[in-house]
Formats: sequence, structure tokens, C-alpha cells
Amino acid sequence: MKKNELYQLMGINLDLAVEAHDLLRGDTGREIPGVKEDVETFAQGTIKTITILNEQGATIMGRAPGSYVTLESTGLRENNKMVHKNIGEVLGEKLKEILPLQDDSTILIVGLGNWQATPDALGPKAVEYSMATRHLFHYAPEELRQGLRSVCVLAPGVLGITGIETAEIIKGIVERIKPDLLIAIDALAAGSVERINSTIQVATTGISPGSGIGNKRTGINQETMGIPVIAIGVPTVVHAGIIAHQAMEKLFEHLRTTPHLRDVYQSLQPVAIGQMINQVLEPFGGQLMVTPKEIDEQITNTAKIIAMALTLALHPGIPPQEVEHYLH
Amino acid sequence: MKKNELYQLMGINLDLAVEAHDLLRGDTGREIPGVKEDVETFAQGTIKTITILNEQGATIMGRAPGSYVTLESTGLRENNKMVHKNIGEVLGEKLKEILPLQDDSTILIVGLGNWQATPDALGPKAVEYSMATRHLFHYAPEELRQGLRSVCVLAPGVLGITGIETAEIIKGIVERIKPDLLIAIDALAAGSVERINSTIQVATTGISPGSGIGNKRTGINQETMGIPVIAIGVPTVVHAGIIAHQAMEKLFEHLRTTPHLRDVYQSLQPVAIGQMINQVLEPFGGQLMVTPKEIDEQITNTAKIIAMALTLALHPGIPPQEVEHYLH
Amino acid sequence: MKKNELYQLMGINLDLAVEAHDLLRGDTGREIPGVKEDVETFAQGTIKTITILNEQGATIMGRAPGSYVTLESTGLRENNKMVHKNIGEVLGEKLKEILPLQDDSTILIVGLGNWQATPDALGPKAVEYSMATRHLFHYAPEELRQGLRSVCVLAPGVLGITGIETAEIIKGIVERIKPDLLIAIDALAAGSVERINSTIQVATTGISPGSGIGNKRTGINQETMGIPVIAIGVPTVVHAGIIAHQAMEKLFEHLRTTPHLRDVYQSLQPVAIGQMINQVLEPFGGQLMVTPKEIDEQITNTAKIIAMALTLALHPGIPPQEVEHYLH
Amino acid sequence: MKKNELYQLMGINLDLAVEAHDLLRGDTGREIPGVKEDVETFAQGTIKTITILNEQGATIMGRAPGSYVTLESTGLRENNKMVHKNIGEVLGEKLKEILPLQDDSTILIVGLGNWQATPDALGPKAVEYSMATRHLFHYAPEELRQGLRSVCVLAPGVLGITGIETAEIIKGIVERIKPDLLIAIDALAAGSVERINSTIQVATTGISPGSGIGNKRTGINQETMGIPVIAIGVPTVVHAGIIAHQAMEKLFEHLRTTPHLRDVYQSLQPVAIGQMINQVLEPFGGQLMVTPKEIDEQITNTAKIIAMALTLALHPGIPPQEVEHYLH
Repeated sequence: MKKNELYQLMGINLDLAVEAHDLLRGDTGREIPGVKEDVETFAQGTIKTITILNEQGATIMGRAPGSYVTLESTGLRENNKMVHKNIGEVLGEKLKEILPLQDDSTILIVGLGNWQATPDALGPKAVEYSMATRHLFHYAPEELRQGLRSVCVLAPGVLGITGIETAEIIKGIVERIKPDLLIAIDALAAGSVERINSTIQVATTGISPGSGIGNKRTGINQETMGIPVIAIGVPTVVHAGIIAHQAMEKLFEHLRTTPHLRDVYQSLQPVAIGQMINQVLEPFGGQLMVTPKEIDEQITNTAKIIAMALTLALHPGIPPQEVEHYLH
Repeated sequence: MKKNELYQLMGINLDLAVEAHDLLRGDTGREIPGVKEDVETFAQGTIKTITILNEQGATIMGRAPGSYVTLESTGLRENNKMVHKNIGEVLGEKLKEILPLQDDSTILIVGLGNWQATPDALGPKAVEYSMATRHLFHYAPEELRQGLRSVCVLAPGVLGITGIETAEIIKGIVERIKPDLLIAIDALAAGSVERINSTIQVATTGISPGSGIGNKRTGINQETMGIPVIAIGVPTVVHAGIIAHQAMEKLFEHLRTTPHLRDVYQSLQPVAIGQMINQVLEPFGGQLMVTPKEIDEQITNTAKIIAMALTLALHPGIPPQEVEHYLH
Repeated sequence: MKKNELYQLMGINLDLAVEAHDLLRGDTGREIPGVKEDVETFAQGTIKTITILNEQGATIMGRAPGSYVTLESTGLRENNKMVHKNIGEVLGEKLKEILPLQDDSTILIVGLGNWQATPDALGPKAVEYSMATRHLFHYAPEELRQGLRSVCVLAPGVLGITGIETAEIIKGIVERIKPDLLIAIDALAAGSVERINSTIQVATTGISPGSGIGNKRTGINQETMGIPVIAIGVPTVVHAGIIAHQAMEKLFEHLRTTPHLRDVYQSLQPVAIGQMINQVLEPFGGQLMVTPKEIDEQITNTAKIIAMALTLALHPGIPPQEVEHYLH
Repeated sequence: MKKNELYQLMGINLDLAVEAHDLLRGDTGREIPGVKEDVETFAQGTIKTITILNEQGATIMGRAPGSYVTLESTGLRENNKMVHKNIGEVLGEKLKEILPLQDDSTILIVGLGNWQATPDALGPKAVEYSMATRHLFHYAPEELRQGLRSVCVLAPGVLGITGIETAEIIKGIVERIKPDLLIAIDALAAGSVERINSTIQVATTGISPGSGIGNKRTGINQETMGIPVIAIGVPTVVHAGIIAHQAMEKLFEHLRTTPHLRDVYQSLQPVAIGQMINQVLEPFGGQLMVTPKEIDEQITNTAKIIAMALTLALHPGIPPQEVEHYLH
């Protein structure tokens, strides 16, 4: 699979399981062994669940066994707050199904990424909107925490600012306060621009090394943290190299009526195409990202939707019609 | 000139005069009538001055007659504060030559753009670092303003946040406080990624409608403001469409040994290429921008360099070795 | 009236008309000629309207003729979002009565004060939460502005940051865009700590020189702006000198059984008391402010309540149950 | 000692050892057993070192044995950046003496306090200006870290925002990354307004429960963290109750010529005075803080001075004349 190989050469990961799945199935739509896909629809979009059932599926998909639930709705990008609220409620219901929660669970929500860089600020913004309640369970009277679960939140920053790997900070705090569940929110990189701010992925596998748009060298998952880790990610950028490659593909499609051109184009090695793209992207290479101009507003909206969904999923006593009042 | 035509079709302006000039001169390096180019070098880079001498030059270049001074240095992108300081001093000296200043001039510095969107925040950041002194001339004793000029600063925000066109806000204030000179700082869009955060353009013509990466519908120039306007701009993004087009060009270069391909590619109308690129960039079209991942830090650095250069150029009493102390 | 005289000596203004009124009426509760007070109650508090009917009342009260509507509720300080919403709706209804609005009015909302200083950031925060719509009337299709009025917003900053007096910035913009109504939101200083974050004052007279906790030298009112100006103010601080004086009063009350002490205390000139207080407050003098520790959260809440009330009052098409969705 | 008792009743701690010492020595200037005071002067002020030598001194002073170094200079409050730089260099030299450093030490700097509340934001601001280098020791070539020590930085937030006690977050990270030294920067409460932003205290004892202006319930010191902890604190507020009490004292001083008054005043129990003050400060009580209006700018300046001093003390290879270039 040429595209897969090229992306690997260019150091580009597809963060969304649904994109990796589509890529593997290709035009033929053939089934991937060890992988199951379910699709539901709701008023504003669809929810696709890709389940990697076994090691075979894991090897082909290049990601850990588990569920990757993808909510897709262009309503995320619309400037319509009623639509946002509806999506938040749908996501909240889905999270209730996914999150392994007991009545007395303590949950740590971490917002990964750099709050000073707009497309990477999704995680920190989502935790900023989320309400911490864990201290109420230590210091406040019981009636104040009726219907609430114990939640703590943190935006640990990025390596370049703190000098500490994010996973180390989180691991230290997890060992100290011993939550029952870790929820990690992160900005992702997508494989096509139409995914930007239109997709929310919830992965029961946590975050593996190399995912996300930042430099997260150590995984944040059950293996490294010792507790269940749910990752919530939203693609906010596309690597510029993907745009360059898609432009080439379009050009080739257009030109393929020329005699012999198909043969010439198909004989091009990924490494040659990679070199051409690198020449376009010099001196930044894989560090160039594509984002829409309105990224700041869209990230604010999506961060609020995620905070709303988490509030509904984590605190059974908060009715949906009042949830905005509990956002920070 | 195919590229010019294509960019026009795609609604892409090249904000840098030096890029427009290079594009027009093409590979042949022929002179453009009515346009003069001078080049100086300094330790960290070069300063190119493009002067549009008359209407003929203005028509060909598609910009107003005046000087477009371009400081080019990859040192802007390096994480070396001594290099930044040197560039700031060079830019300060150049601004002293360019700015039409009297001893008692009042200067209004405006930072254009949206402070909530990293790549567009250059202007607001640069004014945040700049020191206002105008009130000292009204309220403070004389010894406090020795060696200073009267400077006021403003970051008016963008249309989507205020509901008011930026030029209207500035015009209202200019009419009210009657400064002698307006300096407008803005983030620009470049024609190639190597320009990002490596170039500072100073234009004696102010800002024309359609420049910059935001939506600035009315010009901010001597004509609209009634006083001299100097524009300082730094490219912080490249339109994604340019990346796509450059990728196609690279591919074509590679393929052109194929019989007849040159003819086929060259017979492609810009409108056809524009359509292919639009298909890649859907649903965002011309609203997709390419930026490096470290954009936030680079913008902070460049904003400080500009504030430093302006402080040196505007206040004769501040010695270069102390200028950091006068940044906010 | 000793207290009045002392505050004048210490350069302290009582920003709230209701406090000035109480001070003048004193313990006797006598009527002030030319001044009328009405009181209404609602679930979470009361609304007092002080109307200065004529020049006689204006001279005694030391403020312009007009209405000063004061919403009082300790619910503003409670961490209960449903209570906040109710207060927002009550304030919205009251603003509908007070604001001189036509269907096609254009309204400029300005947030006065310094966004970098927590207790002074109320105005900038309230406009940050408010939605600008004026540009929709120029650029967007008609259905997008159904039920909306044309609103623009601005946080002009303070003299020390911009070098320009706030009133000059606003006047320049008012002359340029010609709104029909100006609404100015500002943090105030109260005469007792129990007023902090429990009171919202709406004055039909705008802002006079010397009000507010910042340095606002020129008035922002119909006289200076040429259009109706409604001022919305919330006390967020008390001058430290008031605390010091109140402590002295308490001590005296306690000591007054001592023979002759009443005479001694009452023979103290305000200038002598002022000097004692100055010795306590040196070297800051009148520049010391008293605020509660949780000021940041309370200011955020109050700013949201004001933005909510303005949204309801200005845009007839937005139903109360959806108003949160229209806050920025 | 009446004052001590009163403050205890009102729940007010004096964070500065130098103030506690002055209070204990009183007007008589008598020596405190087990406590030593040294005074040095420099161009802009003095450095007082209080050393608590043994348990006797610790009991009387109510704080742990160790050194409390207090830099006092009103230059901290002046708007003169050359003065700030000089103070930064003096503090840097002092820190070199105090900090227990090896060439290969790893240092964790934590900024305590709430970045959303101006007077409490000193710690987070100081770490924001400080440069992290620890990651360079893992990932960068050796020449990039010549003359640097391994430093990591963190602003953990406050309990009300995260739901986690600050000491727990720090302890978790300390156990994980095992630094050799912890430096904790915090805003303090002073006993008189002239201390505000004119004093920097460096304590070799870390932070004990109850210090600081926030709610820090667990100590951050060698005992709790297992490594040496140096606390750097700057008073940014005074409790409003102190102002009230000082006003009473002034009034009494003035009145004491009255026959018998001295007796009456001195017979007042602290609990009675505390009640009077509480009546003034209701409904906020001990939660009311006094700060100067320009607190935001002064905190920014002091945070930069601390970051500068730490940079000089921690990184031997950075020359004083270039230190500004290494602030973030």
C-alpha cells in the first residue's frame, strides 16, 4: 500500500483509527481480519465503532486491541450552539457506555498539549472548562456532592515548557492520588482536511507513543499508568505533506489519459515522492501543519462540547438542561 | 504568467513585494520597468529594498508606489537571543531611515490581527511588548520623558470579535488624537514556506485592501488615514493551496521526460488546476493555512524583535544595550 | 457630615448612588429633596431605584440627574449557576425598561478597565462574553440576523497601557460608527465590603469624571459622547482607607462609655483622622484596595451575568432558555 | 504580646520571619534566644538574615530552624528596569550562597498559587519566565547545554481548580523524576503595607502548613518531599484585618492623653478587638486582602527579577549581561 509506506517515510501517523481502517480497506471495501466496524446514526451525524478484536487485527491496523469510537458531524464546525449541545449530549451518552465507572470512582482528566499554540490547545481548554470536584469529597459537606463523582483535572504542559515528559508528570500524580480512571484529551492530526474539527475519537486503549500532534514519546495507557485510560482526541490539523501528496494524486488522476503516464507515475518509488514533498516543505519538513483560519473558535467550541459530555457522563446528578451551568 | 493567474483564481495574494517581484522577474531575471531593487547584507542576513518608482511599476507589481524593505534572516527562527537582539538593532537602524519623524512627533502603533489565533497574533503581541509614553507628555514631569517620543499603542481586534472593521476603529482614533505617523504591524501570508518567520517587510505604503491573513477590507494607508502609514509585516503562514500547487509542479518536473507530458501539463488551464486543488482543500478552500508547529514561540520572538526595533527607532534616548528594559 | 468630608480629604469617591443616598439620609432616614427612592423585590434580592429629579437633588447627591438602578443580591457571590441565571434574567428585564432602544438601533458596548488587573477586569470580561453582531448586518444574509440588534463591542484598555485616555478612544469610535446607544461596563469601588460582588448599578447618566476604580479623567456620558450612555457598574473593591476608618468608628463606639471620650473623639478634625489613616497606608495611600481572595471567580461570574442580561435585553429573538448558547 | 494573640484569633499568619522577629523583639530590641540576625547592605537596599539556631528559637519564632534571608528594597516597586536588574543580580549572588547545588544537580522550580488571581499569580508568572533545560540533557547534543544545569518547571495550580492538593501534585512528580532540589515560589501576606512588593524572602526551610496567601494545607519542605526545599516568597497582600487593627492603634495613640483611656484601651481583650474588626470585614472576614492598584505590573516585575536571579544562580555559564535573553 503505497500511501501507507509514503506516510511512514515522511514520519506521518494517522491518529484516527477510522482513517487507518478506510485506508486499509481501500476502494474494494474488503473486510480486515480481526477488525469489526459498527455504524450508528444520530440527528447530526454518525458514530462509527472500530473494534480491534485480536492480535491479528492489531498488527494489520498498527494499533492496540480495543474500541475506537468515532463521532462524525460537520455540526462541530457550524456556529450553532444548539447543535453543539445536541452533539455534547450524544457524546455524553456514548461515554456513559464506554467509561468503566463505579459510583465511587475517582477520575483524573488530563488535557494534553500546549496551551500557547492554538491547534494544540484543545486538551488544556477542555480541562479548563471542566469542573474539579475531588476536593469537595475531602473538605465539603455531603449535600454539596450529591450526584457528583470525584473528578480532578490537570493540564501538565509540554516537554519544551516544563522540561519533563508529560507521561512522567501524569504517572507521578496517578501513583500519588490513585484515581480509578484516567481520561486524556488531546489534539490529533488527520489524514484529510475534511476531518478537521468534524470528528471526535474516543479510544479505550489510551494513547500510544507517537500519536497526537505534539511530541509524546511515552505512551499514556493502561500498561504505563496501571489504570484504565480513555483517550478523547479531535483532529485539528493535517500534516502539510498530506496536502502535497493529495495534490499530486489529483494531478495524476487528471493526466492519466496520457499514454504511458500511468506506468511512469506508478513506477515512482515512495522515497522519490517523499523527496519531492520535502523540497516543497523545506526547511520545516514534517513540522508543518495545515489548519483552518477559524481554528481558535472551533477549538473553543469543541473543548466545550467535550467538557459538557464528560460532565454528563461523570456526574449522574447533573441534568442535561443544566449542564452549561457546571462548565467553568 | 500561469502562477499569478492561478493564485488570483484561488483568491491568494502574495503579501510580500519581494515575492511578487521575484515571480515577475522569473527565471530570466529581467528588469521590471519602474521598479528598482537594492540589496545590502548584514551579519545575519540581507536587506532587500524594492522601490516602485511610478505608475507603470505599480501596475505591473499590483501594489502602490513606495518602498518595500525586506529584512531576511533565518536567525529570526533560531532560538538564539543574541542573534535576535542583533537583528532588532539592524531593523531599528533601518526604521530610523524609513520613518518620517520629527523630535516632537506623536506615533500611533497598531497591532492588527486576532490575539486568540496564534499565527494572527503577531501584531497584538508586538504592541503588548511596546511601551506607551504619550500619557507621560500630558501628566508626568519633563525629566521622565527625556529622550522619549510620544507613542501610543492599540490592538483593535478583528471584525468577528468587535463587529467593527479594524480600519474604522483606527480611523476614529486617528481623527481624535491626531498622531503624526501610524505604524501598523500585521501577520502576512507568504508564497513559500521558507519565508515563514524568516522575513520582516517594512512598507512605506501602509496596508492595501486584501493584504494580510485576516479579512481587512478597507486599506490602512495615507489615503484612508490622512497621515503617513508604515506597515510592518511578517509572514507567519502559507496558503495550503500554494503547497498543493508546488507539489504538482515538483511532480511535473519529475515526469517531464515522458513523451508529450510537457505539452499535456502546459495545456492545463489554471482553472482546471484550481479545481483539483479545491478538491483537496474542501470544505475549507482558501481558508486553510500552513504553519510550523513551533509557531507560538517564533511569533513571540519576532514580536519582541519588532518591539525592540521600534523602541530604538522611536526613542533616541534609549541606548541599545538597555532596550530590553523598556519592553513591556 | 464628617464621613463625607473625610472621604473627600482622602480622595475617595463612593461610586454607588445608593450608598451616597444612605449616607446622606443617615440614621434619621430623612428624605433628600429632589431625590426619590423606589424599592422592588425579586426571588434573590431587591432592586432599588434612586431618581435624582432636579438640580437641587443633583447638588446634594453630587451626581447628575437621572436614574440609578441598583440590583442587590448576595446570590451574585454564591457559587450557584441557577441563581446566576435568574439574576441575569431579572437584570435583562430591567435593562429592557431602561435602555432607549429602537428595532434598528446600533449599540456599542465598551468594557472599561485593565484586563491585566483582576478587580479591574470586569468590563473587559463582560465584553469578551458578549457577542458582536454588527458585521452580520453588513456582510451576512438577512436570515442570520433575525431577532438580533446590531451590537459592537470593545475593550479599549487603560491609559497606562495605551497612552490614550479611554474617553478619547471611545469618542473617536463613536464619531466614526455613530451608534445610537453606548453601554459602558466598569468595576466600581464601594463604601463597605458587604457591597463587593453583591451589587450591580445601572445608571442612565453614564460615567462622570472620577468614578470607577481606575483613572478615568474624562466623563463618558451624553454630554461628552453626544449619544445616550448607560453605565453598568459592579463594586469589586473597597478603598483600604474606608476599612481603616470603619475600624476607628467601631473602636470609638466601644470606648464611648469612658468619661469625656465622646467629646475628644468628636473634636478630632477629619484632617487629623485622615493623617492617621495615611500613616497606616503609607507608602501607597489612596492606591490600596481591599478585595476578597476569590475575586477572580466572582468577577467571571458577574461578567457572565451582565453579558447574559445584555444579550436578553438587546436581542429580542433570543429566548431566555437558550441565552447561554449566545455567550462567547 | 497582644498583637500576636489577636492575629492568631483572626487566623492571620505573618509569612515573613523578619516581621515575626521584629514583633517579638518589640520596641525594646531585646535579643531572642536561639535566633541570630545579620544585616548587609547593597546599593538599592539591605539583606537581613534571620537564623533560627535551635528548638528554643523555633518555638519562640513559631517556625522551623533554618535561615530566612530577606532582601528589602523599595526599588522593587520603582518602574526602573536598571534597578530591577541590579536587584536580580544581588539576589542571584545570594541564591548561589544559599542553594545546595552540585554541578550535575537537577532542580525542580514550582510556581505556587492561582494564575487567575493577580496577587496570587507571582509563582506561576516566575516559572513562566524561567527556562526549562532538563529535556536538553535527554534529547539535545552536549554543546547545547554547556554551562547549564538541568532545570524543570511547573505551575501546578490550586486545589479549587484541580481538585488535588498542591503538595500531592509536587510530591508525585518529585518521586517520579527525583530532582536534587526543589525551589517553591509563592506570594505571601505581609504584616504592613510598606512590605508589599518591596521584600523577597528566601527560606531554607521550605513552606510550612498555613503559610502563603492561598490554602496550602500540607507543608512543602524537606520532611514532606524528601529533598531540600528552598522557598522564595514575596508579600503581595496584607490581610484587611491588619489594616483595621493598625487604624485602631493609631487612634488610640492619638487619644491616650485622655484621662483613663490608656487603661480602658489596654483592658480590651483581643477577642473584643477581633469582634470589632470582624464586624467591619463581614461577610468576608479573613478572606479580605489589601493590594495596591498597580499590583499586576509590580508582580510581573518581581516575577522577572526572581526568574533572572534563579537563571544566574542555577546556570553558571550564563553571563549577567545576557541574562535577559534567557528569560522566556
